[in-house]
Amino acid sequence: MADLEKQIKEKAKEIDKILDAYLPEEKGHASTVMCAMNYSIHVGGKRLRPMMMREVYRMFGGREEEDVLNPFMAAIEMIHTYSLCHDDLPAMDNDMYRRGKKSTHAEFGEAMGILAGDALLNYAFETALTTFNKAGDDPEKMYRIAVALSTLAKKAGIYGMIGGQVVDIESERKEPGEVTMDTIEFIHENKTAAMIESSMMIGAILAGALPAEIDIVESIGSDVGLAFQIRDDILDITGTDETLGKPAGSDVINGKATYVSLAGLEKAREDVRILSERAIANLAGLGGSTGEAGVFLKDLILSLIERDR
Amino acid sequence: MADLEKQIKEKAKEIDKILDAYLPEEKGHASTVMCAMNYSIHVGGKRLRPMMMREVYRMFGGREEEDVLNPFMAAIEMIHTYSLCHDDLPAMDNDMYRRGKKSTHAEFGEAMGILAGDALLNYAFETALTTFNKAGDDPEKMYRIAVALSTLAKKAGIYGMIGGQVVDIESERKEPGEVTMDTIEFIHENKTAAMIESSMMIGAILAGALPAEIDIVESIGSDVGLAFQIRDDILDITGTDETLGKPAGSDVINGKATYVSLAGLEKAREDVRILSERAIANLAGLGGSTGEAGVFLKDLILSLIERDR
Repeated sequence: MADLEKQIKEKAKEIDKILDAYLPEEKGHASTVMCAMNYSIHVGGKRLRPMMMREVYRMFGGREEEDVLNPFMAAIEMIHTYSLCHDDLPAMDNDMYRRGKKSTHAEFGEAMGILAGDALLNYAFETALTTFNKAGDDPEKMYRIAVALSTLAKKAGIYGMIGGQVVDIESERKEPGEVTMDTIEFIHENKTAAMIESSMMIGAILAGALPAEIDIVESIGSDVGLAFQIRDDILDITGTDETLGKPAGSDVINGKATYVSLAGLEKAREDVRILSERAIANLAGLGGSTGEAGVFLKDLILSLIERDR
Repeated sequence: MADLEKQIKEKAKEIDKILDAYLPEEKGHASTVMCAMNYSIHVGGKRLRPMMMREVYRMFGGREEEDVLNPFMAAIEMIHTYSLCHDDLPAMDNDMYRRGKKSTHAEFGEAMGILAGDALLNYAFETALTTFNKAGDDPEKMYRIAVALSTLAKKAGIYGMIGGQVVDIESERKEPGEVTMDTIEFIHENKTAAMIESSMMIGAILAGALPAEIDIVESIGSDVGLAFQIRDDILDITGTDETLGKPAGSDVINGKATYVSLAGLEKAREDVRILSERAIANLAGLGGSTGEAGVFLKDLILSLIERDR
């Protein structure tokens, strides 16, 4: 496990370097927004989404990381970061800190917090669209890029991440008794799982996986995303401030309806186990799953689901 | 002129119908954000950007409006609308009304004002990306769509509209004496002209115009955007509350540095004349400019630059 953690950290560092190559230069009249974008990205993170995208791409034998994959890895992290940047705004969660550093709006002011988020979302598409320049006039490559772009857009929008965020915000303003399991599952599936799904799917799409394989990858992403989020709800109950590195029990204190408060701790644990087993079984059915990338991906998934912080 | 106004209004109505076909259905758990998106679009507007896109497309002989052009017309209006939706937020211009109706955040709350803007930007790309489904495996069509998408993204982002908005917000918070003509021109070029440029360019790109023609269209868009914006600054001085339908002289009252306050009224008028003449001369040099779409486009441009409200 210590080895795996080391491996994950090393891969995250590699991804940081790739991200840096796609971030805007901080120059010109509008340099403030470029500084705010880069600040948001550099606040850090585990880079799980681009990491999963790359491992799936490698598992399916993809070989054009520089020209095709890297811009999409940067794009998915930009979209993830914009969502955190806007989540932290005073009208949303009003968080002044993220990962121990000032959140973007706290550092640059509220207007720039909004604009940096907008800019990251827009720049994600600008960045991913540059891959067309490298596709020449190869229709197969162009087709893959088009499908990857559509997946990126759909899973980030109202039928994905934004939809989940909208329902989450609305649920927080309701009495806990009014929030049903159906709603909680919708939030988990969209706010969290959709972006895990798209990360993994884009890796498969760009590597030339078949439609049936891409569907399996989508269902793995969904299971992993849901298990990850239920695990989060469990840890809020069972973790300590020390193991979590943040206050435990905050959902209970805030009277927030969660998977655990609605289903109970035992059912939640059982559901994580079922989701996890199904994801791993589906992964094992894919070609390439016994290779280096497939094995790492399996370990990464298990570590996300079994983590205690 | 009365005839032209009638024509513009009729075309705007046609475009409203096209927009409606691409707006999301208001259903499901996240329906609030879909309602807020559609509300923002239905607050109205002159639909100038999609209108110009379509006229340029027709001028260059484009013939696939339904499959290729219409989704891009919807996308450009969604991006324009998201920018107004975020501009109106309390941390930005704090406007409670737009075109006599409540602004989106005033109607739906601040969190939903932010999310509806995010959703419109994301949905613009989702919508424009659907055109790939109609391109089959025709590399020429896919290439045009890819270039149109890149243009859409670039002109809306930090090297276009968002860049202009950032500098505008920063300038408003400076003393007027600190704002130079260079800065004002940057704001006009990016906040206003960039989206006029992309509207016209995308029409040309999708219709299959040559790169040299697309460059000319870009420079026409730039001239029209700048002239339009200088005209706005002039009207703030010379108009009355009645002709403008909004309070005249608000820039002076707010001590805002404008093109007119820095260059003087005569120079501003002269510059509008020069920009307008150059745009019309460039337009006249393009094939198709004497056809129905070309003539309407010329009249539309002149009406925008010579308007008194």
